[in-house]
Amino acid sequence: MAKAQIGVYGLGTMGSALALNMAEKGFEVAVTNRETDWIAGFVEEAGALGGKLHAHDTLEGFVANLAAPRVILFMIPSGAPMDAMIDAVVPLLAAGDTIIDGGNADFHLTRRRSAALAGQDIHFVGMGVSGGEKGARHGPSMMVGGTEHSWQQLKPILRAIAAQYEGEPCVAHLGPDGAGHFVKTVHNGIEYADMQMIAEIYSLLRNGAAWAPAEIGQLFAEWNKGPLRSYLVEITADILQYHDPETGHPMVDVIKDAAGQKGTGRWTVIEAQKMGQAASMIEAAVGARAWSSEKETRQTAQEKLGGARGAIEADGATLADAMMAARILGYAQGFRILAAASAEYDWQLDFARIAEIWRAGCIIRSALLDDIASAFRGELLHGELILSPSFTETLGRTLPALRAVVGAAVAQGHAVPALSSALQWADTMRQGFGSANIIQAQRDYFGYHGFERLGQAGKHHGPWWDQA
Amino acid sequence: MAKAQIGVYGLGTMGSALALNMAEKGFEVAVTNRETDWIAGFVEEAGALGGKLHAHDTLEGFVANLAAPRVILFMIPSGAPMDAMIDAVVPLLAAGDTIIDGGNADFHLTRRRSAALAGQDIHFVGMGVSGGEKGARHGPSMMVGGTEHSWQQLKPILRAIAAQYEGEPCVAHLGPDGAGHFVKTVHNGIEYADMQMIAEIYSLLRNGAAWAPAEIGQLFAEWNKGPLRSYLVEITADILQYHDPETGHPMVDVIKDAAGQKGTGRWTVIEAQKMGQAASMIEAAVGARAWSSEKETRQTAQEKLGGARGAIEADGATLADAMMAARILGYAQGFRILAAASAEYDWQLDFARIAEIWRAGCIIRSALLDDIASAFRGELLHGELILSPSFTETLGRTLPALRAVVGAAVAQGHAVPALSSALQWADTMRQGFGSANIIQAQRDYFGYHGFERLGQAGKHHGPWWDQA
Repeated sequence: MAKAQIGVYGLGTMGSALALNMAEKGFEVAVTNRETDWIAGFVEEAGALGGKLHAHDTLEGFVANLAAPRVILFMIPSGAPMDAMIDAVVPLLAAGDTIIDGGNADFHLTRRRSAALAGQDIHFVGMGVSGGEKGARHGPSMMVGGTEHSWQQLKPILRAIAAQYEGEPCVAHLGPDGAGHFVKTVHNGIEYADMQMIAEIYSLLRNGAAWAPAEIGQLFAEWNKGPLRSYLVEITADILQYHDPETGHPMVDVIKDAAGQKGTGRWTVIEAQKMGQAASMIEAAVGARAWSSEKETRQTAQEKLGGARGAIEADGATLADAMMAARILGYAQGFRILAAASAEYDWQLDFARIAEIWRAGCIIRSALLDDIASAFRGELLHGELILSPSFTETLGRTLPALRAVVGAAVAQGHAVPALSSALQWADTMRQGFGSANIIQAQRDYFGYHGFERLGQAGKHHGPWWDQA
Repeated sequence: MAKAQIGVYGLGTMGSALALNMAEKGFEVAVTNRETDWIAGFVEEAGALGGKLHAHDTLEGFVANLAAPRVILFMIPSGAPMDAMIDAVVPLLAAGDTIIDGGNADFHLTRRRSAALAGQDIHFVGMGVSGGEKGARHGPSMMVGGTEHSWQQLKPILRAIAAQYEGEPCVAHLGPDGAGHFVKTVHNGIEYADMQMIAEIYSLLRNGAAWAPAEIGQLFAEWNKGPLRSYLVEITADILQYHDPETGHPMVDVIKDAAGQKGTGRWTVIEAQKMGQAASMIEAAVGARAWSSEKETRQTAQEKLGGARGAIEADGATLADAMMAARILGYAQGFRILAAASAEYDWQLDFARIAEIWRAGCIIRSALLDDIASAFRGELLHGELILSPSFTETLGRTLPALRAVVGAAVAQGHAVPALSSALQWADTMRQGFGSANIIQAQRDYFGYHGFERLGQAGKHHGPWWDQA
């Protein structure tokens, strides 16, 4: 049997799609899985690509089949199963080999694992893979964290299987250890916010203007031809055209309004908080999912507090501008978290490059990302995306629409937590002098915490203490 | 020298105030401090109370002076210094002794320390103390987590020094290990939200209606005579009357609008997130403090994005109702976090009792807490404060005011992140059918995550997969 250039362990949805993608690009791929009875069937179903897939029933045989220095991609749950696999596979490896965790892992784990294996010169890579099953099969966006040595091993394979944006592969070596997994976590946080804003606009049109789902879908399909073009807008447009085969109702009408979540949104919020950042739009989206799961409580609250929602004037152009403003603000919050982490962990993240590899393949891919990459390539005051000349121009034009939409929702009783958070952040940042002087006075009054005076360094206390 | 009933280690602001409080109530108190040169001066300044204070220069002498089983209250930073003190003092202790961490500690640390010492039958108590220096000196609210054995030791002293609410001491044994510190953390989270809402209302009146600080202070002083009566409203009323001795300007005008924070607000948000809860109003308040510290960025953003804010119709009664609605929602979010933690850690927290011991002594003491205690003593649908008969009535009456205030702020460009979060939560919970059906459809479309159908158990996928 010829040596394989890479091994893929874990043939679930994402693992099998990536293995097929590699085979299709001409790589020899060793494959195996914890439940070994799946393996033969997988290779058989692969048809012509099966010739490139080397099936193994044992970990030993799988490792022995890999060209040295070896590269193994694990597509398994990132907690205890990953640790168990590290323990099992490391004794079979040699210095210079690389193992990759391609799942959504907590980047702290990735950092610990990288450090633990570095002493044996085993390279641990944390790689974020976005794009769902179709992306993995035909071109995902991949965010790599690890050593330069590993990147040199992986580069030819990953560039071949990645999504292409105008001929440029959507994959990059973003930094050491946990950098790739962290960037993927924040990608998902931005995704949470964007999904929530689309859902809020849907709900405004549906419940405030009595539009049918298919009509809303047509509006989104229109948006997808312009500056709001994005995968999430595109699929929502498509989703809204479907009818339930069982009842004939619009499909979205029979889906329970209780959203699940797997952790990356929450991780983004927690890590942002730990670094003193507030990712308020991602917080709003994570919160909305949490509250959605309390359906019985909401039903009771509707009875007790009343669920009345008034009419909203539906204006597609205003809604589009509102979505644009909010989307810019959502991405900007995401990149602020990346900047904080880059400083905290000394990753020296290349924000423009991150925006570039998100332009195709991943769930948040959108026309806006090209503008974001350009903004990061230019001069940025305080490193803030919202202060780039192009975005101040766009925000100046679109914030009034966001204000109008949120204002109407507030007046008429429609919940728009993410859109509202977007506006609140913009309105907070637009004030050179805010209201935290009151907070500082309160803190000094009850806790003698002290405050700075305007234009005067040092710690001061209020006159309320002089009379104590 | 007579044996002391308790020892206080750490004579900073809070520690010295608590020691004096104990001495005043007739207890014999051993005192010491890391820097020993402070100690004599402290006892001297205590005047007549000095006779009850037993000063010690060494840890050995301090411990030897305590009646067995011993009780030592540490008022020192809760991280490494606390661990170092545990290492130093435990060899001097015996089974049945209790040591107390009276600072703001991460309750996870408290749980670990309790567990680590339990094997030697040394009891570790995590105690939240609220009320600032004045509270500590004349009557704080205290939240005790620890063993029943420790509580029996502490009870006579703590009940004597606690704030009294209609003759009832504001201290309780809330649960084991970290329960006291966790409840204190959430207390502070609620405090963050309440402070932020007061600051937002101040800013609306100041910047939207051109009221002078003293006029706003008079409004708050009026509020403090009615259902909004609370320490934070009271002190803000007082603060707003002060002028800067240096410039003669209203004091709040010379205080830099960059708020500090020490961690409890952030901890509340992080712990809530870990348990799948969204404490959106506390998130908003923590976020507002974080953004306030970016003053230079805000100044640039004001130039680039414009800082225009329009006129707000100032109506004290509407603002009062808005504050009432938002305050109810803020407390309700806090108690939801307590409920989640009580379930997670099996603490069996008594929510009514917590509300009761917050009625006096602590920073969030307010007239509302008596109503909250009553609500928890009654029947609560889904355990939700906002669904109690009295609060549905109050919210039904006051939510329109909150809506009007947030609506005006949104329309006129004033930032009200906490008030806005309050309204968004209420409007989300008022809907038996929300918009998360769209989120579920999107998640199924791109990730085959599946969804529930309305009124049908099990996992389903959309028709978009049939044609794949």
